[in-house]
Amino acid sequence: MAEEADDNVIFVGNKPPMSYVLACVTQFNDGMDEVHIKARGKAISRAVDVAEITRNRFEEDAVIESIETGTEEIETDEGDEINVSSIDILMKK
Amino acid sequence: MAEEADDNVIFVGNKPPMSYVLACVTQFNDGMDEVHIKARGKAISRAVDVAEITRNRFEEDAVIESIETGTEEIETDEGDEINVSSIDILMKK
Repeated sequence: MAEEADDNVIFVGNKPPMSYVLACVTQFNDGMDEVHIKARGKAISRAVDVAEITRNRFEEDAVIESIETGTEEIETDEGDEINVSSIDILMKK
Repeated sequence: MAEEADDNVIFVGNKPPMSYVLACVTQFNDGMDEVHIKARGKAISRAVDVAEITRNRFEEDAVIESIETGTEEIETDEGDEINVSSIDILMKK
């Protein structure tokens, strides 16, 4: 999974939350009125941190419009298929 | 934070996800038509796992009605105040 910003989607991975918060703020400053913050597995908690920090400290007129969760099947390095939860937080300004 | 089921609220902590899934299924079997799955900090990812496993494997007519996130101030053992993200997943049957 890419960890860089792409269009109006931020993929949250293992970096410190502030890297993703800055990516999110940048998207809004670039004129996007919607930003999706997406994550899978353990990074889900960090995605929620990113949304909360963004709306509490940087984009006080942004709201969390919707939060969707899902289950994705991914293949491990050993070739096993495992289920992993995912989240898609839609922020709107 | 309590980790046991209380009324129709499941507080997700550090136990394996299946303990909370079973608590959730038990609540529905006891006649609750709504169950809140709540967590803070790193346990947020596990709360999403609990909701996903519950609806995919055990309660296929249950839906995730809403997901709310928030920020809570908690005091550390050293007396410092830190912010922690929280989640409240409302499942409905």
